[in-house]
Amino acid sequence: MENYLDYLFNPRSIAIIGATDKKEKVGYAIFKNIVEGGYKGKVFPVNKRLDVLEGYKVYKSVLDIPEPVDLAIISIPIQYIPDLFDELGKKGVKAAVIISAGGREAGEEGRKIEEAIKEKARKYGIRFLGPNCLGFANTLIDLNANFGLDKPLKGKTAFISQSGALFTAIMDWALEEKIGFSYAVSIGNMADIEFGELIEYLGEKEEVDTILVYMESLFDASKFAQAVRKVSLKKPIIIAKAGRSESGQKAAASHTGAIAGKDFLYSALFKRVGAVRSENVLQLFDLTEAISKQPIPSGDRFVVVTNAGGPGVMAADEFDKWNIKPAELSKETIKKLDEILPPVWSHGNPVDIIGDAPPERYKNTLEILFGAEEVDGIICILTPQFMTKPYETARVFYEVSKGKDKPFYAVLLGGAKLKKAKQFLEEHNIPVFETPEEAVDSMYLTYTYTRRKQLVEKDDLHVVSKKSEKVKEIIERFLNEGRIYLPAYETKLILKEYEIPVNETYLVKNVEEAVNIAEKIGFPVVLKVNSPDILHKTDAKAITKDIRNPEELKNAFFRILENAKRYKKDAYIEGITVEKQVESDFELIIGSSYDNIFKQYIMFGMGGTFVEFFKDVSFDFIPLSKVYAEEMVKSTKIYKLLKNGFRDKKPVDIEKIVNILLNVSNLLLDFPQIKELDINPLLAKEKQVFAVDGRIKLSKEVEKNSILL
Amino acid sequence: MENYLDYLFNPRSIAIIGATDKKEKVGYAIFKNIVEGGYKGKVFPVNKRLDVLEGYKVYKSVLDIPEPVDLAIISIPIQYIPDLFDELGKKGVKAAVIISAGGREAGEEGRKIEEAIKEKARKYGIRFLGPNCLGFANTLIDLNANFGLDKPLKGKTAFISQSGALFTAIMDWALEEKIGFSYAVSIGNMADIEFGELIEYLGEKEEVDTILVYMESLFDASKFAQAVRKVSLKKPIIIAKAGRSESGQKAAASHTGAIAGKDFLYSALFKRVGAVRSENVLQLFDLTEAISKQPIPSGDRFVVVTNAGGPGVMAADEFDKWNIKPAELSKETIKKLDEILPPVWSHGNPVDIIGDAPPERYKNTLEILFGAEEVDGIICILTPQFMTKPYETARVFYEVSKGKDKPFYAVLLGGAKLKKAKQFLEEHNIPVFETPEEAVDSMYLTYTYTRRKQLVEKDDLHVVSKKSEKVKEIIERFLNEGRIYLPAYETKLILKEYEIPVNETYLVKNVEEAVNIAEKIGFPVVLKVNSPDILHKTDAKAITKDIRNPEELKNAFFRILENAKRYKKDAYIEGITVEKQVESDFELIIGSSYDNIFKQYIMFGMGGTFVEFFKDVSFDFIPLSKVYAEEMVKSTKIYKLLKNGFRDKKPVDIEKIVNILLNVSNLLLDFPQIKELDINPLLAKEKQVFAVDGRIKLSKEVEKNSILL
Repeated sequence: MENYLDYLFNPRSIAIIGATDKKEKVGYAIFKNIVEGGYKGKVFPVNKRLDVLEGYKVYKSVLDIPEPVDLAIISIPIQYIPDLFDELGKKGVKAAVIISAGGREAGEEGRKIEEAIKEKARKYGIRFLGPNCLGFANTLIDLNANFGLDKPLKGKTAFISQSGALFTAIMDWALEEKIGFSYAVSIGNMADIEFGELIEYLGEKEEVDTILVYMESLFDASKFAQAVRKVSLKKPIIIAKAGRSESGQKAAASHTGAIAGKDFLYSALFKRVGAVRSENVLQLFDLTEAISKQPIPSGDRFVVVTNAGGPGVMAADEFDKWNIKPAELSKETIKKLDEILPPVWSHGNPVDIIGDAPPERYKNTLEILFGAEEVDGIICILTPQFMTKPYETARVFYEVSKGKDKPFYAVLLGGAKLKKAKQFLEEHNIPVFETPEEAVDSMYLTYTYTRRKQLVEKDDLHVVSKKSEKVKEIIERFLNEGRIYLPAYETKLILKEYEIPVNETYLVKNVEEAVNIAEKIGFPVVLKVNSPDILHKTDAKAITKDIRNPEELKNAFFRILENAKRYKKDAYIEGITVEKQVESDFELIIGSSYDNIFKQYIMFGMGGTFVEFFKDVSFDFIPLSKVYAEEMVKSTKIYKLLKNGFRDKKPVDIEKIVNILLNVSNLLLDFPQIKELDINPLLAKEKQVFAVDGRIKLSKEVEKNSILL
Repeated sequence: MENYLDYLFNPRSIAIIGATDKKEKVGYAIFKNIVEGGYKGKVFPVNKRLDVLEGYKVYKSVLDIPEPVDLAIISIPIQYIPDLFDELGKKGVKAAVIISAGGREAGEEGRKIEEAIKEKARKYGIRFLGPNCLGFANTLIDLNANFGLDKPLKGKTAFISQSGALFTAIMDWALEEKIGFSYAVSIGNMADIEFGELIEYLGEKEEVDTILVYMESLFDASKFAQAVRKVSLKKPIIIAKAGRSESGQKAAASHTGAIAGKDFLYSALFKRVGAVRSENVLQLFDLTEAISKQPIPSGDRFVVVTNAGGPGVMAADEFDKWNIKPAELSKETIKKLDEILPPVWSHGNPVDIIGDAPPERYKNTLEILFGAEEVDGIICILTPQFMTKPYETARVFYEVSKGKDKPFYAVLLGGAKLKKAKQFLEEHNIPVFETPEEAVDSMYLTYTYTRRKQLVEKDDLHVVSKKSEKVKEIIERFLNEGRIYLPAYETKLILKEYEIPVNETYLVKNVEEAVNIAEKIGFPVVLKVNSPDILHKTDAKAITKDIRNPEELKNAFFRILENAKRYKKDAYIEGITVEKQVESDFELIIGSSYDNIFKQYIMFGMGGTFVEFFKDVSFDFIPLSKVYAEEMVKSTKIYKLLKNGFRDKKPVDIEKIVNILLNVSNLLLDFPQIKELDINPLLAKEKQVFAVDGRIKLSKEVEKNSILL
């Protein structure tokens, strides 16, 4: 065997533990699916209370089987499985599928059984799928090793589902839609084999050209990230994950019995490692059809051809959902179209070739657009009007698009009048959509694969370690004092060490010193309390801005001290910071936090009072590389304003922000004691970008904090 | 005839002008569709060059027809139609359908022909549909008076399409989906009959229970608004309108040859008059199916029942799209469910009744939920798992939901295994959806009909006129001076007259006066230039905030004058305003503007620097009534913060804002000379809401500025 998972997916022989003649039982369904599926390897039913099952000899134990066994498929009550594994080990079985439910999903008792199974499996070197799964299918060897699936069609798609119900539902639906698979896997509780390993395995198979995933949660985000990062360079991985919203996450938690982790981190991770997130499960198949039948678009400049204005407008609207515009046609293309289209054509994109368009007009138009450099993909809409010849037009679609390197999707809007055309296109590798919106979504999302792959290719994960002694000393001092929060002054000292610009900030102990500093750096200044015990200085009224003269400063100084003490009587007050007031056009925020599944992650976005309300933020993981730090900035809405300026605000030096993000990433990698970092606000005005306030939360625990390394 | 449009839709006799024996011609297709459709009235083909057409006597002219003619359907070249109308008038024809293209959509020449036809039509009292339309169908009398449609099925839905292509496509699709209609109308160029009249007519028909519309643009928004406002109290009107996005509107403009008006005003108007906007054309039919088969939900507390966790999560996610949460189940309901469900059920909504759910478990669960007061509608998901009995479960769905006053929709996720169940449900008036998302969208959107109807019922359109002499005088003074912009000072005078609170504001001519005022009202103060020629005071640097003492004031005073003159040399400067600086928690904006189609409309939303960027605004029309002014505030995202407060900001007195909106509406109705009004910012802090800056744009033209009156 080339790979240890071959024993699972491509076994030479299978023992079916719990095979039975009781037709309502899972053990019967699995046996039937395997023997009727056409599997060519050896099948050994195992059941203490049975001698023969539909012509097959039944063994009392795996140990009685006279030949080697690669794979055991198990559907006996889960509490017997740990002991069973001793027999499997003795027999030299290499892999198992545990169908049985009653593991972790059933509570504490089940969790313990799972642990016992894992321990035995480790001991004997047996790798297993499940428990609480439905099995799998490998159509390459006609192995339908599951219960619940009618035999799937053959194809080059692989499907992994974390939900058994959706596994059955989707495979049932795919059968009707004539979608084929090479592998389909119900992954169950993932006590052993998880997404990462499976994706890596499927990534190496020539017979797999697209991997579809239905995911509810990850346990090992690191293994997943590293596998997908590698595989997505070779083939698209498309993931539908439920639980976007708060209500959805609540429902998911109640369903899986575990908090699945923050949904936005899933989205961020998929992007970082080159996977595409599908909006829902049915869209998985729209995308599969698009990818398997047509080239993947190399850019996002799409053109819509239509014989009806309305559907063209709908397509244009849908581009907007993805923040792109229909491709702008060149003067040359417009001129060529002018020559072959009636004068009333739309003279733009969507290309409305008018309701009476005969097949020939479609042909001429499409030929010009396939030849146009400014076009990366074509969506062609056909509505059945009085002069329309749907079937003949469909033939034109095929002839013109055949062998081209740009994707071509058809939208057929109508019913009976289009049936023959639809069938022809389906048989000739042209995806057919029911609405313009679906076609646009599919073309855009397949394009995102191209884009994400390009980013992954540029993501070098190069880490610059500074290992600053000064930072180490500050952190250790606070931890030794039993403090986990660093106030703004010390936070800024640390930031400065990592070349993150901060505004001029001085820590003073008395008002005279404060006045001296203010006069040195120049009014107006800002005064803030510096205390590890007062993190919300505004709530404590322990901050005063826009102080214009010594008198105002003195008032502010004593008021801040008083308010700080009133806010928290026993607060440890290190002093007051006197800071140069920074003029700014944009208030930004950079933060980092630690998640049990995703480890340390970084946030960038718009800051200010309403930051939590508008949530114009993006997320990524450490280490950041230049390309992803840029991507973080570009993914926010405020980016457009930063880049172009806005009213009286001039454009901001984006590279400065990118460098700050990279430096934050380096700091976090060097010091895993930092569990949370807030730079809020990060003020920006043209070439000046300053961290003006911040805090750090520490932890004594020092553990690996990157899932990418 | 009861109604003048009965001559069109329910004629006793029809002349087909341009009927022909040439099978590729529209005139033949229409003749065939009518005679083969089973129409019982009299049919008179008219064609100068023909004597007999498939057994029918052909007349040289309508004047030769020996009997009265109610309706003429015309497909001769458009340039002959004005003269034809003389004959129709002479003959006493009451209504016409002009199929012929070449009107306005073909350019100036066509527009002139349309005008000529309209004039003749007015002269003879003939009402007509088109030109450039496909005709209509009235299945109640088996009249298939169009070209392009196979005979539609009978039903209680009416459909009006502004696009001929979509008319054919959708009716073709509906035929396949077995959706029936009473009326289907291709409305064409709307040279005469427009949406408003048609909706009013169909609103009165017992045989119509839902009106579906595909719309690209309105000409007469007033007639439309008033018709829909009346009809939506009786039956749902669901409208798909293309052109949401900028690209979409550009495409629509190129398609219809006319700017369709601002899309957000369509959405606002639909809401104001009780219509529901469908997201796309296919959703029209999801909604029709939902409405025609099940009760319309009376509230938005929906529950999801499922035998699989994943799809439940998807449904919960989709609720989030509409900003609602799954219904919270009462303790009592949970207790009842505890008694009949396995212990591992989800104990919440979505109600996950676990993968092995037999029909009986569905039945018990649904009975409890139908009886639960906290539930307004039920979505029930079925996936084909190993123990599932789809057909038997479908029968349970029907038995339990039959005759209930809450809507019940089924989601069947799968293929062949669910076919029989699906067919049973479709035959038993239970809508079946392919995905949880579609079911949630349909239930929510049908609910919006209930909600919007309730609002329309409370919308009294009561107008309070103040006819302020003072305002009249200010407006006339400016107009007489040839000025169309009122600067902030005069705008605030006007606002005060209409009981819109403004911050203390004084207009001064010299710096001494300014100091005196500032000392009287107390520092800090704000200084601004007051000039009808300088509207962007910030750009001109002609505004200074937070002035704390006389010295700062003097500096600011002269700096502002200097900057104003530098900004615009010949600006007419009335003086400088000295204003009390207002503390605020929230910066809001109220604006109004004039649109050629929708007349005067009002905007409310979040203000501040990034107002144009976040676009957190809502729109409505004058006159506002209390219920819609409240709705405007509630429709913004910032509402949640205004209502509940946010961090250190206390809740704001919403009623104050609502009253300001009502007063703005009264002002605009009293003075149609006001074409634009900006209150920016409107500052709010707890019970204090003040207009702090503003401007007004005037026009000499005084015309009706409300489409609702």
